[in-house]
Amino acid sequence: MRSIDLNSDLGESFGAWSMGDDAAILEVVSSANVACGFHAGDPLGILHTLETAAARGVAIGAHVAYPDLVGFGRRNMDIPAEQLRADVIYQIGALMGLARSAGTRVSYVKPHGALYNTIAHDRTQADAVIQAVLRIDPQLKLVCLANSPLLDWAGEAGLACVAEAFADRAYTAQGTLVSRSRPGAVLHDPELIAQRMLRLVREGVIEAEDGQVISLQAESICVHGDSPDAVNIARDLKTRLLEAGVTLRAFS
Amino acid sequence: MRSIDLNSDLGESFGAWSMGDDAAILEVVSSANVACGFHAGDPLGILHTLETAAARGVAIGAHVAYPDLVGFGRRNMDIPAEQLRADVIYQIGALMGLARSAGTRVSYVKPHGALYNTIAHDRTQADAVIQAVLRIDPQLKLVCLANSPLLDWAGEAGLACVAEAFADRAYTAQGTLVSRSRPGAVLHDPELIAQRMLRLVREGVIEAEDGQVISLQAESICVHGDSPDAVNIARDLKTRLLEAGVTLRAFS
Amino acid sequence: MRSIDLNSDLGESFGAWSMGDDAAILEVVSSANVACGFHAGDPLGILHTLETAAARGVAIGAHVAYPDLVGFGRRNMDIPAEQLRADVIYQIGALMGLARSAGTRVSYVKPHGALYNTIAHDRTQADAVIQAVLRIDPQLKLVCLANSPLLDWAGEAGLACVAEAFADRAYTAQGTLVSRSRPGAVLHDPELIAQRMLRLVREGVIEAEDGQVISLQAESICVHGDSPDAVNIARDLKTRLLEAGVTLRAFS
Amino acid sequence: MRSIDLNSDLGESFGAWSMGDDAAILEVVSSANVACGFHAGDPLGILHTLETAAARGVAIGAHVAYPDLVGFGRRNMDIPAEQLRADVIYQIGALMGLARSAGTRVSYVKPHGALYNTIAHDRTQADAVIQAVLRIDPQLKLVCLANSPLLDWAGEAGLACVAEAFADRAYTAQGTLVSRSRPGAVLHDPELIAQRMLRLVREGVIEAEDGQVISLQAESICVHGDSPDAVNIARDLKTRLLEAGVTLRAFS
Repeated sequence: MRSIDLNSDLGESFGAWSMGDDAAILEVVSSANVACGFHAGDPLGILHTLETAAARGVAIGAHVAYPDLVGFGRRNMDIPAEQLRADVIYQIGALMGLARSAGTRVSYVKPHGALYNTIAHDRTQADAVIQAVLRIDPQLKLVCLANSPLLDWAGEAGLACVAEAFADRAYTAQGTLVSRSRPGAVLHDPELIAQRMLRLVREGVIEAEDGQVISLQAESICVHGDSPDAVNIARDLKTRLLEAGVTLRAFS
Repeated sequence: MRSIDLNSDLGESFGAWSMGDDAAILEVVSSANVACGFHAGDPLGILHTLETAAARGVAIGAHVAYPDLVGFGRRNMDIPAEQLRADVIYQIGALMGLARSAGTRVSYVKPHGALYNTIAHDRTQADAVIQAVLRIDPQLKLVCLANSPLLDWAGEAGLACVAEAFADRAYTAQGTLVSRSRPGAVLHDPELIAQRMLRLVREGVIEAEDGQVISLQAESICVHGDSPDAVNIARDLKTRLLEAGVTLRAFS
Repeated sequence: MRSIDLNSDLGESFGAWSMGDDAAILEVVSSANVACGFHAGDPLGILHTLETAAARGVAIGAHVAYPDLVGFGRRNMDIPAEQLRADVIYQIGALMGLARSAGTRVSYVKPHGALYNTIAHDRTQADAVIQAVLRIDPQLKLVCLANSPLLDWAGEAGLACVAEAFADRAYTAQGTLVSRSRPGAVLHDPELIAQRMLRLVREGVIEAEDGQVISLQAESICVHGDSPDAVNIARDLKTRLLEAGVTLRAFS
Repeated sequence: MRSIDLNSDLGESFGAWSMGDDAAILEVVSSANVACGFHAGDPLGILHTLETAAARGVAIGAHVAYPDLVGFGRRNMDIPAEQLRADVIYQIGALMGLARSAGTRVSYVKPHGALYNTIAHDRTQADAVIQAVLRIDPQLKLVCLANSPLLDWAGEAGLACVAEAFADRAYTAQGTLVSRSRPGAVLHDPELIAQRMLRLVREGVIEAEDGQVISLQAESICVHGDSPDAVNIARDLKTRLLEAGVTLRAFS
């Protein structure tokens, strides 16, 4: 029985506005994608999340994003590659500084929102992110969408990748995510989610929306913590994985 | 004959807006206070300044500031200490990341504008900045206003300080800066400025506005580069110091 | 039996972050202080709040603030008067535009947070706000802290004022608010709050923290909607006022 | 001999950073596209520009943009239509408030940078802008790229349009602008520019890059003021137009 990593987005409060239950989800996951201030996260809030993550031994990733606070990094931006590269370095550096102050360190990078989706297929922006990571610290790993060309592009550049699956998302027969705009794209049944992820961990496959069983190699599973329901699904998934003898362990 | 450091503020352009002639002033100074994005500086512009500084062997300091882009960090802000501490760590970390990408490193911290003035006398904000520096890297030095209590506060906390003098500013008999709102606060005569700084370097004294000669112990002299006149004054000062046998050398 | 106005802060969500239950509190109040984007509020969220307020016949005020999103406008800023004046005009104008689009209009201005507190006693910033309102539309009213000198300053300048009381705050014998840092500054008992406000409306007095009964002339009462408890307190207060025969009516 | 309008972008300084020579270009143009704070312009700087424009009798347009200060509104953003609509209303409203304070008024809207280019061909974003203008004030005119479908879309919606030509840009045989990435896209010869614009005004045609003479119906000509050279070109153009008996007059 192999091991798996669970990751989730954290540190996404901003000033007086709170988002998600970081304390609750930090009891579940082994890796925390922590906001860096561009789509969410103010320095003090980020620091508090890092301190809690450090206390729980959760690994830290830089959840880098487009500079779009009001859009929460969810809107595509056509940023020239050189600017994007510097933006990503800035964010990783800022999180590294806060992490050091919290007694922990950044061990990976996971792009957020629209940037995550874009670099899964856009070579120019992908290369900008890859070069940013290599230039600030080539030991950092990059979390990538499983089955995306980004895995190859990063590998060619000498950057270690971690493929991830999404616990609550449906997949196409091509191994890509079903668009959120289509019905059935997001799964809500905790039992179904747990069964799919168990199979993923054990067999390296998942059932696509058309019923085909396809290969999905993933070292990490993304879960959500932005609602009480989401936290419960994540907690249930962890329990089921542990009951099945799977070891939860950060990939980094 | 002792040595001295010349420092100046750089990286203060922002997006489409340029400020100062970084390339020109980097031929003059031994230390560059580089903006970190809170009062000025976008990631790519900062990176370019760091690359030029690295090529010239100029030492890098984090020019941390209040989060006030439209006010250029010149307006006092009553930020709770815990928030200010995290803000400063965030900025230093971001600059460290960009510096590493540029093949150099951050070796000191110099607060900017209203934050600089406030921590020279406000214990609460001073401690927040001191703790920020100690928490991210206790090897960093803090550039402080000569004759200010901040030197003592930082020393007590175990943080190495560098006292600085301002080349183009008048001093009171108490060794503090004459307020900019008073006539004669800012000097414009290159010859007078050079003479005053030569005496400072040789004798550790400066003539106050009332004619008294007072002690002013400084390891660094701040010059400006935000106008052609300012660059000329800085260049002249450097020439005069070198002609007098003074060695220009970064304190860090 | 006289009438009274109930006002509350609304439109304070920002992008992906929500704050308060605007729909619930709009069933209670007669005047809505709507965020203008400087401390909170994105254009679309503000527009939605304005549309709901318009549908309910609730009067609209511009809840102007310092330009400090991450600090939610709660941190004092030492903004030069001329800048502050322009900042306030900009915010009122922006809200006027959105209000027109929502089929309603802005009828008053209420400064938010640190700006509200500062102009209650700081003449320079108070005058900046007063001049801003007069220059964009002298028909607008300014909501002021009861018993503050701001009422006189605005009156002298020819700007109509509305004094307001805070339902859930304790008062000093001098008629000012007990600082939030002191115990008992914020009241939580719905019954006590309702009794105090009923007496305020009927007799124009309130019991201070030391037991003295002092004069408190107010045309509006501020209630909160940022928590379910706060909404309940506001709803109870409205019920009690109506039962006592008080008419709820916007002052504007 | 017909009349023509000259327009230019103004108010694009931001805080400590200045851009363009607003005073100089306001002596040349009849219409000023004034930044609204999203891509450039702080409230006080905008107000000063509006006051100067008012003193010179120059008409005011709202130069609305994507919310992207660091990118100066030049980067495409995939903003949902409802958000974009509210963003545009907010900006027009803010400028209306400042204009009223400056003793003038907003009489038209001209989108800036990437937004200008996008709505010239993207129906969704175009409709968002059109609806924004109609909802805040249907008397406002919209400045559109000559020969673009936006002219039709706005017309169908009942919004009055003003087609504009660019003095210093080359045109394709299809009547569209030659992309800036191609050589010869931007013209620098004042004499050539003046001759082309004179012919445009007199005959309603322009010579395309391939030598064909094509129809170009424009009521306004855009000139630049962001460099001394640009101001000189604009001044020369004005002189040549006046010498040729053309009347310069705001379209609004």
